[in-house]
Amino acid sequence: MTRFDEATKAIRVDATTYEVCLDDGYAIGGPLNGGYLMAALLRATVDASPHPHPVSTSTQFLRSARPGPAVVHLTPLKSGRTTTVTQAVLTQHGDPYLAALITTATLTPDAEPFYTTPPTTPMPPLADCVQLPAPKPESGMTLNAQTDLRFDPPTIGWLNSTPTRHPESRAYFRLTEPQAPDPYVLALAVDALPPVAFSAGLRGWAPTVELTWHLRALPAPGWLTIRASGRLISDDWFDEDVEVHDSTGRLVAQSRQLARVGRA
Amino acid sequence: MTRFDEATKAIRVDATTYEVCLDDGYAIGGPLNGGYLMAALLRATVDASPHPHPVSTSTQFLRSARPGPAVVHLTPLKSGRTTTVTQAVLTQHGDPYLAALITTATLTPDAEPFYTTPPTTPMPPLADCVQLPAPKPESGMTLNAQTDLRFDPPTIGWLNSTPTRHPESRAYFRLTEPQAPDPYVLALAVDALPPVAFSAGLRGWAPTVELTWHLRALPAPGWLTIRASGRLISDDWFDEDVEVHDSTGRLVAQSRQLARVGRA
Repeated sequence: MTRFDEATKAIRVDATTYEVCLDDGYAIGGPLNGGYLMAALLRATVDASPHPHPVSTSTQFLRSARPGPAVVHLTPLKSGRTTTVTQAVLTQHGDPYLAALITTATLTPDAEPFYTTPPTTPMPPLADCVQLPAPKPESGMTLNAQTDLRFDPPTIGWLNSTPTRHPESRAYFRLTEPQAPDPYVLALAVDALPPVAFSAGLRGWAPTVELTWHLRALPAPGWLTIRASGRLISDDWFDEDVEVHDSTGRLVAQSRQLARVGRA
Repeated sequence: MTRFDEATKAIRVDATTYEVCLDDGYAIGGPLNGGYLMAALLRATVDASPHPHPVSTSTQFLRSARPGPAVVHLTPLKSGRTTTVTQAVLTQHGDPYLAALITTATLTPDAEPFYTTPPTTPMPPLADCVQLPAPKPESGMTLNAQTDLRFDPPTIGWLNSTPTRHPESRAYFRLTEPQAPDPYVLALAVDALPPVAFSAGLRGWAPTVELTWHLRALPAPGWLTIRASGRLISDDWFDEDVEVHDSTGRLVAQSRQLARVGRA
Protein backbone atom coordinates (compact mmCIF):
# COMPACT_ATOMS: atom_id res chain seq x y z
CA MET A 1 0.00 0.00 0.00
CA THR A 2 1.40 3.41 -0.96
CA ARG A 3 1.70 6.28 1.49
CA PHE A 4 -1.13 8.08 -0.31
CA ASP A 5 -3.42 5.06 -0.08
CA GLU A 6 -2.57 4.68 3.60
CA ALA A 7 -3.01 8.43 4.27
CA THR A 8 -6.49 8.45 2.72
CA LYS A 9 -7.63 5.11 4.17
CA ALA A 10 -11.12 5.31 5.67
CA ILE A 11 -11.87 2.71 8.32
CA ARG A 12 -15.48 1.68 8.59
CA VAL A 13 -17.00 2.15 12.04
CA ASP A 14 -20.58 1.58 10.92
CA ALA A 15 -22.65 2.02 7.74
CA THR A 16 -22.46 5.83 7.91
CA THR A 17 -19.31 6.52 9.97
CA TYR A 18 -15.65 6.20 8.98
CA GLU A 19 -12.43 7.12 10.76
CA VAL A 20 -9.39 8.53 8.97
CA CYS A 21 -5.99 9.53 10.30
CA LEU A 22 -4.95 12.72 8.51
CA ASP A 23 -1.27 12.55 7.55
CA ASP A 24 1.07 15.50 8.18
CA GLY A 25 2.78 14.83 4.84
CA TYR A 26 0.05 16.61 2.83
CA ALA A 27 0.22 20.08 4.40
CA ILE A 28 0.46 23.55 2.86
CA GLY A 29 2.00 25.28 5.84
CA GLY A 30 -0.18 24.28 8.80
CA PRO A 31 -3.45 23.35 7.03
CA LEU A 32 -3.81 20.19 4.98
CA ASN A 33 -4.30 20.33 1.21
CA GLY A 34 -7.94 20.38 0.12
CA GLY A 35 -7.48 17.74 -2.57
CA TYR A 36 -5.95 15.34 -0.05
CA LEU A 37 -8.92 15.86 2.27
CA MET A 38 -11.39 15.28 -0.59
CA ALA A 39 -9.61 12.01 -1.37
CA ALA A 40 -10.14 10.78 2.20
CA LEU A 41 -13.83 11.80 2.06
CA LEU A 42 -14.22 9.95 -1.22
CA ARG A 43 -12.64 6.75 0.14
CA ALA A 44 -15.37 6.56 2.78
CA THR A 45 -18.15 7.51 0.36
CA VAL A 46 -17.16 4.97 -2.30
CA ASP A 47 -16.70 2.22 0.31
CA ALA A 48 -20.30 2.73 1.41
CA SER A 49 -21.70 3.01 -2.15
CA PRO A 50 -22.78 0.25 -4.56
CA HIS A 51 -21.04 2.28 -7.31
CA PRO A 52 -17.23 2.47 -7.56
CA HIS A 53 -16.64 5.88 -9.21
CA PRO A 54 -17.12 9.35 -7.68
CA VAL A 55 -18.35 11.15 -10.83
CA SER A 56 -19.29 14.42 -9.11
CA THR A 57 -17.94 15.91 -5.88
CA SER A 58 -18.89 19.37 -4.58
CA THR A 59 -17.07 20.42 -1.43
CA GLN A 60 -17.37 23.44 0.78
CA PHE A 61 -14.24 24.07 2.85
CA LEU A 62 -15.42 25.30 6.22
CA ARG A 63 -12.28 25.27 8.35
CA SER A 64 -8.58 24.36 7.87
CA ALA A 65 -8.13 20.71 8.83
CA ARG A 66 -4.99 19.67 10.71
CA PRO A 67 -3.10 16.35 10.85
CA GLY A 68 -4.54 13.79 13.23
CA PRO A 69 -7.73 11.79 13.67
CA ALA A 70 -10.89 12.79 11.83
CA VAL A 71 -14.32 11.25 11.34
CA VAL A 72 -16.37 11.11 8.11
CA HIS A 73 -20.15 11.10 8.56
CA LEU A 74 -22.20 9.93 5.59
CA THR A 75 -25.87 10.69 4.91
CA PRO A 76 -27.44 8.70 2.04
CA LEU A 77 -29.62 11.00 -0.08
CA LYS A 78 -30.57 8.78 -3.00
CA SER A 79 -29.68 5.37 -4.34
CA GLY A 80 -30.79 4.65 -7.88
CA ARG A 81 -29.90 2.13 -10.54
CA THR A 82 -27.25 4.33 -12.16
CA THR A 83 -26.27 6.80 -9.42
CA THR A 84 -26.00 7.06 -5.65
CA VAL A 85 -25.92 10.47 -3.95
CA THR A 86 -24.34 10.92 -0.54
CA GLN A 87 -23.62 13.82 1.74
CA ALA A 88 -20.23 13.46 3.43
CA VAL A 89 -18.98 15.66 6.27
CA LEU A 90 -15.44 15.48 7.64
CA THR A 91 -15.24 16.42 11.29
CA GLN A 92 -12.43 16.98 13.79
CA HIS A 93 -13.19 17.30 17.51
CA GLY A 94 -16.90 17.20 16.61
CA ASP A 95 -16.84 20.27 14.31
CA PRO A 96 -17.50 20.09 10.54
CA TYR A 97 -14.38 20.92 8.46
CA LEU A 98 -15.51 19.88 4.97
CA ALA A 99 -19.05 19.28 3.70
CA ALA A 100 -19.53 17.54 0.36
CA LEU A 101 -22.27 16.27 -1.93
CA ILE A 102 -21.05 13.30 -3.94
CA THR A 103 -22.57 11.30 -6.80
CA THR A 104 -21.13 7.86 -7.40
CA ALA A 105 -21.79 5.85 -10.56
CA THR A 106 -20.11 3.20 -12.68
CA LEU A 107 -17.97 4.46 -15.57
CA THR A 108 -17.08 2.28 -18.54
CA PRO A 109 -13.33 1.75 -18.89
CA ASP A 110 -12.05 3.03 -22.25
CA ALA A 111 -15.41 4.50 -23.30
CA GLU A 112 -15.07 6.14 -26.71
CA PRO A 113 -16.06 9.84 -26.53
CA PHE A 114 -19.01 10.95 -28.64
CA TYR A 115 -17.54 14.46 -28.60
CA THR A 116 -14.33 15.86 -27.13
CA THR A 117 -12.38 19.11 -27.39
CA PRO A 118 -8.60 19.31 -27.33
CA PRO A 119 -6.92 21.18 -24.46
CA THR A 120 -6.97 24.95 -24.91
CA THR A 121 -3.21 25.44 -24.45
CA PRO A 122 -0.48 23.03 -25.60
CA MET A 123 2.08 21.87 -23.02
CA PRO A 124 5.80 22.00 -23.81
CA PRO A 125 7.63 18.65 -23.70
CA LEU A 126 8.24 17.32 -20.18
CA ALA A 127 11.98 17.94 -20.53
CA ASP A 128 11.36 21.67 -21.04
CA CYS A 129 9.29 21.98 -17.88
CA VAL A 130 10.69 22.95 -14.50
CA GLN A 131 10.23 22.08 -10.84
CA LEU A 132 9.65 24.59 -8.09
CA PRO A 133 12.56 25.08 -5.68
CA ALA A 134 12.27 22.83 -2.61
CA PRO A 135 10.47 24.62 0.21
CA LYS A 136 12.29 25.32 3.46
CA PRO A 137 11.49 22.67 6.10
CA GLU A 138 10.13 25.33 8.48
CA SER A 139 7.55 26.37 5.85
CA GLY A 140 5.48 23.26 6.59
CA MET A 141 4.95 22.71 2.83
CA THR A 142 5.16 18.94 3.23
CA LEU A 143 2.88 18.24 0.25
CA ASN A 144 5.73 19.15 -2.11
CA ALA A 145 7.61 15.97 -1.17
CA GLN A 146 4.67 13.74 -2.19
CA THR A 147 4.08 15.22 -5.63
CA ASP A 148 6.26 15.56 -8.71
CA LEU A 149 5.19 18.70 -10.60
CA ARG A 150 6.89 19.94 -13.77
CA PHE A 151 5.67 23.41 -14.68
CA ASP A 152 5.23 25.14 -17.99
CA PRO A 153 7.91 27.79 -17.26
CA PRO A 154 5.99 31.05 -17.93
CA THR A 155 3.24 30.00 -15.50
CA ILE A 156 5.66 30.14 -12.55
CA GLY A 157 7.24 33.42 -13.64
CA TRP A 158 5.70 34.96 -10.52
CA LEU A 159 8.47 33.22 -8.52
CA ASN A 160 10.94 35.67 -10.07
CA SER A 161 8.56 38.63 -10.12
CA THR A 162 7.68 38.06 -13.78
CA PRO A 163 4.06 36.88 -13.58
CA THR A 164 2.30 36.42 -16.91
CA ARG A 165 -0.45 38.74 -15.56
CA HIS A 166 -3.00 36.09 -16.58
CA PRO A 167 -4.50 33.70 -14.00
CA GLU A 168 -3.01 30.46 -15.31
CA SER A 169 -0.90 27.54 -14.20
CA ARG A 170 0.09 24.39 -16.07
CA ALA A 171 2.11 21.34 -15.08
CA TYR A 172 2.75 17.66 -15.50
CA PHE A 173 1.87 15.77 -12.33
CA ARG A 174 2.49 12.43 -10.69
CA LEU A 175 3.01 11.16 -7.18
CA THR A 176 6.66 10.80 -6.18
CA GLU A 177 6.00 7.26 -4.99
CA PRO A 178 5.13 4.63 -7.63
CA GLN A 179 1.35 4.88 -7.93
CA ALA A 180 -0.80 4.92 -11.05
CA PRO A 181 -3.43 7.68 -11.11
CA ASP A 182 -6.91 6.74 -9.91
CA PRO A 183 -9.93 8.84 -8.88
CA TYR A 184 -8.35 9.62 -5.48
CA VAL A 185 -5.12 10.84 -7.08
CA LEU A 186 -7.30 12.98 -9.38
CA ALA A 187 -8.94 14.56 -6.30
CA LEU A 188 -5.43 15.58 -5.25
CA ALA A 189 -4.52 16.73 -8.77
CA VAL A 190 -7.40 19.20 -9.19
CA ASP A 191 -6.15 21.16 -6.15
CA ALA A 192 -2.38 20.57 -6.49
CA LEU A 193 -1.13 23.68 -8.30
CA PRO A 194 -0.30 27.08 -6.79
CA PRO A 195 -3.30 29.45 -7.04
CA VAL A 196 -3.76 30.89 -10.54
CA ALA A 197 -4.03 34.30 -8.86
CA PHE A 198 -0.24 34.17 -8.39
CA SER A 199 0.27 34.35 -12.16
CA ALA A 200 -2.09 37.33 -12.27
CA GLY A 201 0.27 39.16 -9.92
CA LEU A 202 -1.33 38.50 -6.54
CA ARG A 203 0.28 36.69 -3.60
CA GLY A 204 -0.68 35.24 -0.24
CA TRP A 205 -2.73 32.36 1.14
CA ALA A 206 -5.81 31.96 -1.07
CA PRO A 207 -8.34 29.82 0.78
CA THR A 208 -10.69 27.69 -1.32
CA VAL A 209 -14.32 28.28 -0.41
CA GLU A 210 -15.91 25.76 -2.78
CA LEU A 211 -14.53 23.20 -5.22
CA THR A 212 -16.58 20.98 -7.52
CA TRP A 213 -14.90 18.35 -9.66
CA HIS A 214 -16.17 15.76 -12.07
CA LEU A 215 -14.51 12.45 -12.84
CA ARG A 216 -14.99 12.09 -16.60
CA ALA A 217 -12.99 8.93 -17.32
CA LEU A 218 -10.70 6.46 -15.56
CA PRO A 219 -7.08 7.61 -16.03
CA ALA A 220 -4.43 5.57 -17.82
CA PRO A 221 -1.07 5.01 -16.08
CA GLY A 222 1.59 7.68 -16.50
CA TRP A 223 1.92 11.43 -16.11
CA LEU A 224 -1.17 13.59 -15.76
CA THR A 225 -1.34 17.05 -17.31
CA ILE A 226 -2.98 19.80 -15.29
CA ARG A 227 -4.18 23.07 -16.87
CA ALA A 228 -5.60 25.73 -14.57
CA SER A 229 -7.05 29.09 -15.55
CA GLY A 230 -9.38 31.72 -14.18
CA ARG A 231 -11.88 34.13 -15.73
CA LEU A 232 -12.43 36.85 -13.15
CA ILE A 233 -10.65 38.24 -10.11
CA SER A 234 -12.92 40.79 -8.48
CA ASP A 235 -14.15 41.91 -5.07
CA ASP A 236 -11.56 39.63 -3.35
CA TRP A 237 -12.90 36.49 -5.08
CA PHE A 238 -11.44 34.46 -7.93
CA ASP A 239 -12.35 31.31 -9.84
CA GLU A 240 -9.95 28.58 -10.89
CA ASP A 241 -10.84 26.03 -13.56
CA VAL A 242 -8.74 22.88 -13.86
CA GLU A 243 -8.65 20.29 -16.62
CA VAL A 244 -6.72 17.07 -16.05
CA HIS A 245 -5.72 14.89 -18.99
CA ASP A 246 -4.14 11.48 -18.68
CA SER A 247 -1.06 10.20 -20.54
CA THR A 248 -3.21 9.19 -23.53
CA GLY A 249 -4.60 12.74 -23.84
CA ARG A 250 -8.03 11.86 -22.45
CA LEU A 251 -9.89 14.44 -20.35
CA VAL A 252 -10.24 12.59 -17.04
CA ALA A 253 -11.20 15.33 -14.57
CA GLN A 254 -12.47 18.89 -14.62
CA SER A 255 -12.95 21.19 -11.67
CA ARG A 256 -13.82 24.72 -10.72
CA GLN A 257 -13.15 26.34 -7.41
CA LEU A 258 -14.17 29.67 -5.96
CA ALA A 259 -11.51 31.11 -3.66
CA ARG A 260 -10.71 34.24 -1.71
CA VAL A 261 -7.89 36.50 -2.83
CA GLY A 262 -4.99 36.05 -0.40
CA ARG A 263 -3.66 38.60 2.01
CA ALA A 264 0.01 38.87 1.07
CA MET B 1 -44.43 41.46 -6.67
CA THR B 2 -43.65 39.71 -9.95
CA ARG B 3 -44.81 36.19 -10.71
CA PHE B 4 -41.20 34.97 -10.41
CA ASP B 5 -40.77 36.59 -6.99
CA GLU B 6 -44.08 35.09 -5.88
CA ALA B 7 -43.25 31.66 -7.33
CA THR B 8 -39.93 31.51 -5.46
CA LYS B 9 -41.19 33.01 -2.20
CA ALA B 10 -40.04 31.06 0.85
CA ILE B 11 -42.21 31.45 3.92
CA ARG B 12 -40.41 31.10 7.25
CA VAL B 13 -41.83 28.41 9.52
CA ASP B 14 -38.93 28.49 11.96
CA ALA B 15 -35.20 29.30 11.89
CA THR B 16 -34.37 26.25 9.73
CA THR B 17 -37.65 25.47 7.93
CA TYR B 18 -39.33 27.28 5.04
CA GLU B 19 -42.39 26.48 2.94
CA VAL B 20 -42.61 27.19 -0.77
CA CYS B 21 -45.43 26.64 -3.23
CA LEU B 22 -43.91 25.40 -6.49
CA ASP B 23 -45.57 27.11 -9.46
CA ASP B 24 -46.67 25.08 -12.50
CA GLY B 25 -45.53 27.93 -14.76
CA TYR B 26 -41.85 26.85 -14.61
CA ALA B 27 -42.13 23.31 -15.97
CA ILE B 28 -40.18 21.47 -18.69
CA GLY B 29 -42.84 18.95 -19.52
CA GLY B 30 -43.89 17.49 -16.15
CA PRO B 31 -40.80 18.24 -14.03
CA LEU B 32 -39.96 21.76 -12.89
CA ASN B 33 -36.90 23.59 -14.19
CA GLY B 34 -33.79 23.13 -12.04
CA GLY B 35 -32.87 26.81 -12.05
CA TYR B 36 -36.33 27.74 -10.79
CA LEU B 37 -36.00 25.23 -7.95
CA MET B 38 -32.54 26.55 -7.03
CA ALA B 39 -34.01 30.07 -6.86
CA ALA B 40 -36.60 28.93 -4.31
CA LEU B 41 -33.91 27.17 -2.25
CA LEU B 42 -31.79 30.32 -2.32
CA ARG B 43 -34.66 32.54 -1.15
CA ALA B 44 -34.92 30.46 2.04
CA THR B 45 -31.15 30.27 2.53
CA VAL B 46 -30.56 34.00 2.09
CA ASP B 47 -33.50 34.87 4.34
CA ALA B 48 -31.88 32.86 7.14
CA SER B 49 -28.35 34.18 6.52
CA PRO B 50 -26.71 37.38 7.80
CA HIS B 51 -25.22 37.77 4.28
CA PRO B 52 -27.38 38.84 1.31
CA HIS B 53 -25.62 37.23 -1.68
CA PRO B 54 -25.45 33.52 -2.60
CA VAL B 55 -21.89 33.48 -4.01
CA SER B 56 -21.64 29.69 -4.40
CA THR B 57 -24.41 27.12 -4.85
CA SER B 58 -23.79 23.41 -5.51
CA THR B 59 -26.92 21.38 -6.09
CA GLN B 60 -27.49 17.69 -6.60
CA PHE B 61 -30.78 16.95 -8.34
CA LEU B 62 -32.14 13.80 -6.74
CA ARG B 63 -35.67 13.55 -8.11
CA SER B 64 -37.89 15.56 -10.50
CA ALA B 65 -39.90 18.03 -8.42
CA ARG B 66 -43.54 18.72 -9.35
CA PRO B 67 -45.75 21.77 -8.83
CA GLY B 68 -47.30 22.08 -5.38
CA PRO B 69 -46.15 22.52 -1.81
CA ALA B 70 -42.55 21.84 -0.82
CA VAL B 71 -40.46 22.37 2.29
CA VAL B 72 -36.88 23.68 2.50
CA HIS B 73 -34.82 22.38 5.44
CA LEU B 74 -31.71 24.37 6.32
CA THR B 75 -28.70 23.12 8.28
CA PRO B 76 -26.18 25.81 9.31
CA LEU B 77 -22.63 24.55 8.73
CA LYS B 78 -20.54 27.64 9.43
CA SER B 79 -21.08 31.29 10.08
CA GLY B 80 -18.01 33.48 9.81
CA ARG B 81 -17.32 37.17 9.45
CA THR B 82 -17.22 37.08 5.64
CA THR B 83 -19.15 33.91 4.71
CA THR B 84 -21.97 31.72 5.94
CA VAL B 85 -22.30 28.12 4.72
CA THR B 86 -25.65 26.34 4.76
CA GLN B 87 -26.95 23.00 3.60
CA ALA B 88 -30.41 23.31 2.05
CA VAL B 89 -32.63 20.39 1.13
CA LEU B 90 -35.90 20.76 -0.77
CA THR B 91 -38.41 18.06 0.11
CA GLN B 92 -41.82 17.04 -1.18
CA HIS B 93 -43.94 14.54 0.73
CA GLY B 94 -40.99 14.06 3.10
CA ASP B 95 -38.51 12.94 0.42
CA PRO B 96 -35.41 14.95 -0.58
CA TYR B 97 -35.61 16.32 -4.16
CA LEU B 98 -32.69 18.74 -4.24
CA ALA B 99 -29.71 18.91 -1.88
CA ALA B 100 -27.48 21.98 -1.97
CA LEU B 101 -24.45 23.47 -0.24
CA ILE B 102 -24.58 27.25 -0.35
CA THR B 103 -22.12 29.96 0.66
CA THR B 104 -23.55 33.41 1.24
CA ALA B 105 -21.39 36.54 1.50
CA THR B 106 -21.66 40.27 0.85
CA LEU B 107 -20.57 41.45 -2.59
CA THR B 108 -19.58 45.04 -3.29
CA PRO B 109 -21.84 46.71 -5.87
CA ASP B 110 -19.85 47.90 -8.90
CA ALA B 111 -16.56 46.37 -7.72
CA GLU B 112 -13.85 47.05 -10.30
CA PRO B 113 -12.33 43.76 -11.50
CA PHE B 114 -8.62 43.20 -10.86
CA TYR B 115 -8.62 40.81 -13.83
CA THR B 116 -11.30 39.81 -16.30
CA THR B 117 -11.42 37.95 -19.61
CA PRO B 118 -13.78 38.82 -22.44
CA PRO B 119 -16.41 36.24 -23.49
CA THR B 120 -15.00 33.51 -25.68
CA THR B 121 -17.54 33.92 -28.50
CA PRO B 122 -19.12 37.20 -29.63
CA MET B 123 -22.91 37.41 -29.79
CA PRO B 124 -24.65 38.79 -32.88
CA PRO B 125 -26.83 41.90 -32.33
CA LEU B 126 -30.12 41.19 -30.59
CA ALA B 127 -32.05 41.94 -33.78
CA ASP B 128 -30.26 39.10 -35.59
CA CYS B 129 -31.16 36.54 -32.93
CA VAL B 130 -34.22 34.33 -33.05
CA GLN B 131 -36.83 32.88 -30.72
CA LEU B 132 -37.75 29.22 -30.50
CA PRO B 133 -41.18 28.35 -31.88
CA ALA B 134 -43.85 28.36 -29.16
CA PRO B 135 -44.26 24.89 -27.63
CA LYS B 136 -47.56 23.06 -27.99
CA PRO B 137 -49.72 23.48 -24.86
CA GLU B 138 -49.85 19.71 -24.35
CA SER B 139 -46.02 19.61 -24.12
CA GLY B 140 -46.14 21.08 -20.62
CA MET B 141 -43.23 23.41 -21.49
CA THR B 142 -44.71 26.23 -19.42
CA LEU B 143 -41.31 27.77 -18.64
CA ASN B 144 -41.14 29.15 -22.18
CA ALA B 145 -43.89 31.67 -21.41
CA GLN B 146 -41.92 33.16 -18.49
CA THR B 147 -38.64 33.71 -20.31
CA ASP B 148 -37.70 35.74 -23.36
CA LEU B 149 -34.78 34.00 -25.09
CA ARG B 150 -33.20 35.24 -28.35
CA PHE B 151 -30.81 32.65 -29.75
CA ASP B 152 -27.64 32.99 -31.76
CA PRO B 153 -29.11 31.25 -34.86
CA PRO B 154 -26.51 28.51 -35.51
CA THR B 155 -26.83 27.22 -31.94
CA ILE B 156 -30.44 26.18 -32.53
CA GLY B 157 -29.74 24.64 -35.93
CA TRP B 158 -30.59 21.28 -34.33
CA LEU B 159 -34.27 22.34 -34.56
CA ASN B 160 -34.02 21.94 -38.34
CA SER B 161 -31.65 18.98 -38.27
CA THR B 162 -28.62 21.18 -38.86
CA PRO B 163 -26.80 21.00 -35.51
CA THR B 164 -23.40 22.71 -35.37
CA ARG B 165 -22.02 19.35 -34.08
CA HIS B 166 -20.42 21.28 -31.21
CA PRO B 167 -22.00 21.33 -27.73
CA GLU B 168 -22.89 25.01 -27.59
CA SER B 169 -25.85 27.29 -27.04
CA ARG B 170 -25.99 31.08 -26.81
CA ALA B 171 -28.83 33.50 -26.21
CA TYR B 172 -29.97 36.81 -24.82
CA PHE B 173 -32.24 36.32 -21.83
CA ARG B 174 -34.75 38.23 -19.75
CA LEU B 175 -37.97 37.46 -17.96
CA THR B 176 -41.09 38.22 -20.00
CA GLU B 177 -42.54 40.17 -17.07
CA PRO B 178 -40.82 43.44 -16.11
CA GLN B 179 -38.15 42.36 -13.64
CA ALA B 180 -34.53 43.44 -13.41
CA PRO B 181 -32.06 40.55 -13.04
CA ASP B 182 -30.99 39.67 -9.49
CA PRO B 183 -29.25 36.59 -8.03
CA TYR B 184 -32.48 34.56 -8.19
CA VAL B 185 -33.02 35.38 -11.87
CA LEU B 186 -29.39 34.34 -12.42
CA ALA B 187 -30.14 30.96 -10.81
CA LEU B 188 -32.83 30.55 -13.47
CA ALA B 189 -30.54 31.83 -16.23
CA VAL B 190 -27.73 29.31 -15.66
CA ASP B 191 -30.18 26.46 -16.38
CA ALA B 192 -32.46 28.15 -18.93
CA LEU B 193 -31.06 27.04 -22.31
CA PRO B 194 -31.73 23.76 -24.12
CA PRO B 195 -28.99 21.20 -23.35
CA VAL B 196 -25.77 21.85 -25.29
CA ALA B 197 -25.84 18.16 -26.25
CA PHE B 198 -28.62 19.07 -28.75
CA SER B 199 -26.14 21.14 -30.78
CA ALA B 200 -23.76 18.19 -30.75
CA GLY B 201 -26.44 16.11 -32.46
CA LEU B 202 -28.06 14.32 -29.53
CA ARG B 203 -31.71 14.60 -28.47
CA GLY B 204 -33.95 13.66 -25.60
CA TRP B 205 -34.47 14.59 -21.96
CA ALA B 206 -31.05 15.23 -20.42
CA PRO B 207 -31.38 15.20 -16.64
CA THR B 208 -28.99 17.38 -14.65
CA VAL B 209 -27.20 15.40 -11.96
CA GLU B 210 -25.19 18.23 -10.41
CA LEU B 211 -25.00 21.97 -11.03
CA THR B 212 -22.67 24.41 -9.29
CA TRP B 213 -22.89 28.12 -9.97
CA HIS B 214 -21.07 31.14 -8.63
CA LEU B 215 -22.49 34.63 -8.36
CA ARG B 216 -19.57 36.84 -9.36
CA ALA B 217 -21.20 40.29 -9.38
CA LEU B 218 -24.60 41.92 -8.96
CA PRO B 219 -26.20 42.28 -12.42
CA ALA B 220 -27.15 45.61 -13.97
CA PRO B 221 -30.69 46.04 -15.35
CA GLY B 222 -31.32 44.92 -18.94
CA TRP B 223 -30.76 41.83 -21.06
CA LEU B 224 -28.46 39.09 -19.85
CA THR B 225 -26.25 37.16 -22.27
CA ILE B 226 -25.90 33.40 -21.75
CA ARG B 227 -23.11 31.38 -23.35
CA ALA B 228 -23.13 27.62 -22.80
CA SER B 229 -20.57 25.09 -23.99
CA GLY B 230 -19.34 21.61 -23.17
CA ARG B 231 -15.97 19.88 -23.34
CA LEU B 232 -16.74 16.16 -23.35
CA ILE B 233 -19.67 13.88 -24.16
CA SER B 234 -18.72 10.35 -23.21
CA ASP B 235 -20.09 7.25 -21.51
CA ASP B 236 -23.61 8.83 -21.41
CA TRP B 237 -22.40 11.88 -19.44
CA PHE B 238 -21.81 15.45 -20.58
CA ASP B 239 -20.74 18.73 -18.99
CA GLU B 240 -22.26 22.12 -19.67
CA ASP B 241 -20.48 25.35 -18.74
CA VAL B 242 -22.47 28.58 -18.67
CA GLU B 243 -21.25 32.16 -18.46
CA VAL B 244 -23.78 34.92 -17.86
CA HIS B 245 -22.88 38.54 -18.62
CA ASP B 246 -25.05 41.52 -17.77
CA SER B 247 -26.00 44.40 -20.08
CA THR B 248 -22.76 46.24 -19.21
CA GLY B 249 -20.67 43.22 -20.30
CA ARG B 250 -19.77 42.20 -16.74
CA LEU B 251 -19.41 38.48 -15.92
CA VAL B 252 -22.10 38.02 -13.27
CA ALA B 253 -22.51 34.25 -13.04
CA GLN B 254 -20.67 31.10 -14.09
CA SER B 255 -21.87 27.53 -13.77
CA ARG B 256 -21.02 23.99 -14.69
CA GLN B 257 -23.40 21.09 -14.67
CA LEU B 258 -22.88 17.38 -15.14
CA ALA B 259 -25.81 15.73 -16.90
CA ARG B 260 -26.85 12.42 -18.39
CA VAL B 261 -27.18 12.04 -22.14
CA GLY B 262 -30.89 11.87 -22.99
CA ARG B 263 -32.76 8.89 -24.31
CA ALA B 264 -34.31 10.22 -27.51
